[in-house]
Order: sequence, then C-alpha cells, then structure tokens
Amino acid sequence: MALIVQKYGGTSVGSVERIENVARRVKQHRDRGDDVVVVVSAMSGETNRLIALANAISDTPSAREMDVLVSTGEQVTIALLCIALQKIGCNARSYTGAQVHILTDSAHSKARIMDIDHARVCADIKAGRVVVVAGFQGVDEAGDITTLGRGGSDTTAVAMAAALKADECQIFTDVDGVYTTDPRVEPKARKLDRITFEEMLEMASLGSKVLQIRSVEFAGKYNVPLRVLSSFEDGGEGTLITLEEEHVEAAKIAGIAFNRDEAKLTIRGVPDQPGVAYKILGPVGEANVEVDMIVQNVANDGTTDFTFTVNRSDYRKALDILNKTAAELGAREVVGDAKIVKISLVGVGMRSHAGIASKMFAALSKEGINILMISTSEIKISVVVDEKYLELGVRALHDAFELAEESVA
Amino acid sequence: MALIVQKYGGTSVGSVERIENVARRVKQHRDRGDDVVVVVSAMSGETNRLIALANAISDTPSAREMDVLVSTGEQVTIALLCIALQKIGCNARSYTGAQVHILTDSAHSKARIMDIDHARVCADIKAGRVVVVAGFQGVDEAGDITTLGRGGSDTTAVAMAAALKADECQIFTDVDGVYTTDPRVEPKARKLDRITFEEMLEMASLGSKVLQIRSVEFAGKYNVPLRVLSSFEDGGEGTLITLEEEHVEAAKIAGIAFNRDEAKLTIRGVPDQPGVAYKILGPVGEANVEVDMIVQNVANDGTTDFTFTVNRSDYRKALDILNKTAAELGAREVVGDAKIVKISLVGVGMRSHAGIASKMFAALSKEGINILMISTSEIKISVVVDEKYLELGVRALHDAFELAEESVA
Repeated sequence: MALIVQKYGGTSVGSVERIENVARRVKQHRDRGDDVVVVVSAMSGETNRLIALANAISDTPSAREMDVLVSTGEQVTIALLCIALQKIGCNARSYTGAQVHILTDSAHSKARIMDIDHARVCADIKAGRVVVVAGFQGVDEAGDITTLGRGGSDTTAVAMAAALKADECQIFTDVDGVYTTDPRVEPKARKLDRITFEEMLEMASLGSKVLQIRSVEFAGKYNVPLRVLSSFEDGGEGTLITLEEEHVEAAKIAGIAFNRDEAKLTIRGVPDQPGVAYKILGPVGEANVEVDMIVQNVANDGTTDFTFTVNRSDYRKALDILNKTAAELGAREVVGDAKIVKISLVGVGMRSHAGIASKMFAALSKEGINILMISTSEIKISVVVDEKYLELGVRALHDAFELAEESVA
Repeated sequence: MALIVQKYGGTSVGSVERIENVARRVKQHRDRGDDVVVVVSAMSGETNRLIALANAISDTPSAREMDVLVSTGEQVTIALLCIALQKIGCNARSYTGAQVHILTDSAHSKARIMDIDHARVCADIKAGRVVVVAGFQGVDEAGDITTLGRGGSDTTAVAMAAALKADECQIFTDVDGVYTTDPRVEPKARKLDRITFEEMLEMASLGSKVLQIRSVEFAGKYNVPLRVLSSFEDGGEGTLITLEEEHVEAAKIAGIAFNRDEAKLTIRGVPDQPGVAYKILGPVGEANVEVDMIVQNVANDGTTDFTFTVNRSDYRKALDILNKTAAELGAREVVGDAKIVKISLVGVGMRSHAGIASKMFAALSKEGINILMISTSEIKISVVVDEKYLELGVRALHDAFELAEESVA
C-alpha cells in the first residue's frame, strides 16, 4: 500500500469523457489499495478562454486579478473530477490551492511555493478519501490567490508529494515517457525507463518540454521519485526520474536534446582587457535578453573574439545593442547568424567516461557537419551547427551512441 | 459622501461590454465622492454551463462539489470587473466569498449567512479602493465553499450592506423598479417610488420576482435601505424599499400581485372532528407538497368542507393523496380545479383603512368575476378566481384603487 500523487494536465482532463477516464484510472489505484492524491490542471483551452476575456477589457490587466480569474480553471476541474469519482463509488474531496494552504510568495502569475499545510489532506487520506487538489495555484500570506505560472501544476504535484512524503509522484501527460530524443526527428528514438533529475533538467531546458523545469528541481531537492506516464495508454511504466545513485553506469548517454530557437552573435577584434566580457554582456542582460552559450577566443594581436547565443526572437534586439557596444569598445566588426541550432548530448555517464566529446565530434564530422560553437558542462556537451543539419546531426549522434538499442554494451 | 453597496446581476454583467458599463457606472459614484462596494453574480449563462458539465457526468452530483464548481462563475466576474475598473483609473480589489469571510452554515447550495468579517473590506475602502465581492457564495466553519442558492447575490449585497452599515444597498437589475403590478398584464402599471419591506415580501412571494425574498427579509431585519434600479437605464431613481414609518399613509395599496401557478382541491362532507385539518394536510406535507391558501367551512350536518391550494405542478400528486385520505375519513367527495389563479392586493395601508376588502370584492363583482376563495392577512387580501379572469381582475383592481395615478387622493 503506497501513497501516490498523480498529476493530470489540461489535455488529460480536456473533456467530461476524459475526466471520467481519469476517475477510472484513479479508482484502479484505489482498488489496488493505494492512497491517491490527485492534482489537476484546467481543462485544455479554458485558461486561454479566461485570458481572452481579460484581454478583451485591458491589454495590461493587473496580475492579482488575472490570478483570481485564471485560478477558476482548475477549480472547475477538481469539482468535476470529484463528481466523476463519487459516481463510480470512490469517496473523494476537492480542494483549491487556498483551501489546502499552498502558501506561496506574492509574485502573482509566477509565485513560488513556500509551504503546504497538509493536515487536512492527511485526515482525508486516513478517512479513505481520494483528495483532489487544484494545481497551478496557491495563496499568499495576505490570503490573495496566486498562480505558479504555466505548467505550475507539475510543481504543485511534486510539492504535495514532498509534503506528504509520497512514495511516488506520477505526472500523466500526452506522451508515454521521456525519449532519447524527439521521435519526430529520429523515429528510432527510445523511451527511457529511468533518467536522473540532473539529466532531466538538461533535457527539459533544452527543449524536451515534458515537465516544467521547476518541478524537476523541486523533485530533485526533496528526492521525490517522479514518473512521467501517458494518460491515454494503460499499463505503461513511463519514465522514472530518480537520484543518480540508483542507475549510475547504466548508460553513458541519456539522450539528445536540441533547440531550434537559437541565434548567434559575434563581436570581432575587441581590444582584450579585463572586464570586456561584462562590457559586452551587461547591456544585453539589462535589455532582458537571456544569453545561453558564451565562447571567447583570444587572438595573437591583443584582441579577442566573443561569441554568444540568444533566443531567436531576441536576435534583432541583441544585434542592435551589440553594434552600439562595438562602437564604444572600438571592435572591428559584429556578425550574426539566426539560422543555427543547438544539439546537446546529455548523460551523467560523461562524468566517468572519457572520449565522449571526441566520439561526438567524429560522428558529426563523418556526416560533413561543421561545428560552429562548442560548450560543455559536467553532464552535457552542446554544439551549435547550421540549422539545415539539425535532423542529420541528431540521427548521426543517436546512431553513434547506440541509443536505439535496448541496452548499451 | 455615502457608503453604497451595489449589486449587479447576471444579465448586467453578461458580456465584457456590459462589465465595462458597470465599471463606468461605479466610477460615476466614486467621482461623486461615494465609497462603493460592488457585489456581482456570474455572467448570465455561466452557472447553467457549469451545471451542464456536472450533469454530463452525474445526475446526482454532491452538493459540496457543485458549490466548488458553480462558485467559479462569480469569481470570473469579480476579476473582470476589477480589471475594467482599473483600466478606467479606478482603484479596485476583488474578493471571493471565502476571502471576505462570508461565513455560512454548511447547507451546500442553500447556505445561510451567519457572519461577515468586514475588516479587510473596511481597510480597502479607507485606502480609497472599490471593493468587488463575489455574490452568492460563502465559506463554512470547515473552510468549505458554500453557495446561497439562486438569487443569493442579492442576499450577499444586503448582508454586506448590513455588516458595513452602508447608507444604501442598490440592486441593479433588468427592470427599473417595483411596479404596482406586472406591466405585461396592466400597461397602466406605475413604478413605485417607495414600498415597505413587508409589502415587498408579499409582492415578491406572490410572483413579482424582482428580488430574492431572503434578501428582503434580511434588509428588513437589519434595516438596510434597499433600492431596486435598472442597470441599463441611467438616471432612474428606481424603487426604495424602506421601513414602514417613513411613508405610512402615503398609499393604502402598494400593488397587485398575482400567481398563475395555483391549483385548488376540495374535500367535501368530512365528518367534523378535532384534528381533521391535520389528518387532511399531514399526508400532503409529508409528500413535500407546499400548501398555500386554506379555507374551511363547517356545514350544519356535522360535516365540514375543506379547500386548499397548491402549486399547479403538484396538483396530480395532491389529488391522489387527498383521494386516499377521503376514503379513510369517510368523506363524501374530492373535487379539484387546476385552472385557477390567485390575485392579491398588497399594502400596509390596509391596517388603518377599513373597507378595502369590500371595495375589492365590489370591483370584481362589477366585472362579473366570481370569487372562489378568499384569504386575508394583515397587509394582503388574496382571492382565487377562474384563470380566464386574471387580466380582467388585475386591471379592474388597478383602476378601482387608482394605482395608475401619480398620487392617491
């Protein structure tokens, strides 16, 4: 008999029929003897409908009132799910974020969970009830409704699991797990049985948008076993996200992430002096442009070349800023390229296995793919290449590291 | 500078444009220097949409979860109204029933307000904010969401006005006030400037569905001046509902109410003995059939005739019960008539003016209208007549009591 927190996203509860499916799935767990706490999102489309109503009135609605407005979306779902559970003989009770005291800071629309008062939930579990909690929302010290931002229901689920010391937090979604890479790019992509929190963070932040990053951080911090499952297919085991110790050495590489939304900017011939990096990146950051990869090379003539990548939507803005900086610093020229992508190899196995970078470069070179930038971290190697090589590059690496195989030799 | 509580119903906030109209109207009051607390209902159609979702899952959804579900309707409106107010430069803040601690009992879907913690609202008023409160909803001791039943937003408004000791509670609706009778029946019907709480109760319970009865009782109990106004026409004064003292003698008759949904049943030749009324009405009440008028006549032969009216939808059910009772009691016969209506003359002036009943009977007799039953209370005389006489009867009484005139001689 385990205590399980399950989270169902907007698509999984997108209609009355789907809500009834979720109820049946929850009941299966109950019938097996498990205690279940369910966290749900708003029915798909509902949050957008509410935002459209507000935007029909004002382009700049207050964040406090937007939270009051959009939090009704999950409140509708919790009531409907309880009604569906009760109909099939499953005792259930719903709670809004405020009712279960999901205490957050007051940063409306992007609040952070500070504490959960789980006394009432525990009492319900003890009484044999399924507890259904509205995801995505909380309440601040003043009693005002807050929301955690899009995808925040994942975080609610993980926080509930941590507070209740649940045996597992299951995130039901429209995919059946985490893959070695995007199956739309590499049809041979394989579903992973396990992945570490760190690897998942790298995979998620690089574009595998299965889970909200913050929820993975949270799960890692509180060591909540997290499982990604399909809400549309029965019987799958999904992918379990755990601490490293449990499966270290199982594979050198977990998967290949990529990001199509990159653009790269280079400032050439900058007189090399202390503080030059700050002088270049300072104005960019002040303009709220996030910088991803950074590479600097010093030339022999006392100047330096400095290259960084930004989100493609910020490319023009960054270019304008950089041109001004170049003039101030007396740099030779500024060049940019918005037609690039980033491909990353992710895996905790890198820590203990040498030669992964050279194997990666060899695989790309064999296909004639020119590497424009390289950046490495402890469990990730990222390269920037021309966008036309994205699919070819991902497939070449997937083959080279034998990710399609059931197990790595 | 007055403190005014305004309530806008579902039709008045039925679209984004109408919500913006409400915001403009509230701002006019603010600009005049008044403090304003606004109570709003769900946008028209929204409550029904939510109920339909629940009913698509279950015919018997739990009352607790239904309250969680439908209370989202008002929550959407309060947020949108605040956004609209802020857009036109009016500082505003929204509160759900739970946030403003509208404490009720735990009778889900028909809860009664027990207390309001108005500290937060007072602080906002002091800070120059318009406070927007979700009508129709509250919270019980356990922290569960409750609703007051349909039309409960009126009660919320009156309760807020009572708690805040507001100068006036204004109910904005789709009519511009309370009329001497239904203008669809008597085109000469006149809008009343004033009416007493007691008269309004009689008018409301008899079918003038302008205000929820409970809100009028509440206003009377706490002596909250209540005004009914149109939310679609500017500048009208509406109808003020006040304590009797303020306008006693102003008019003998406030208006004429009527009810088309009546049916009448008679049991004849019942052996007259103590407790016979209970023996007849007991089984009717046990079947949850509400009895309205009751008339009993004792004949000379030691038997009695007993007549009562019920809602027309309960007619068949009541007839079946009465037939059984008649057999048990050895009564002569049971007769019924579902084609009757009730017409009532309402006015506190009756207390001090004799001859009103006879004037009423004379007016009806002059038109050849046969009176089937009569029932009187302190401020009301009701007659039952054949339904074909409804319009004729209402107009005859409206003329006889000169209700169309600006003032009664």
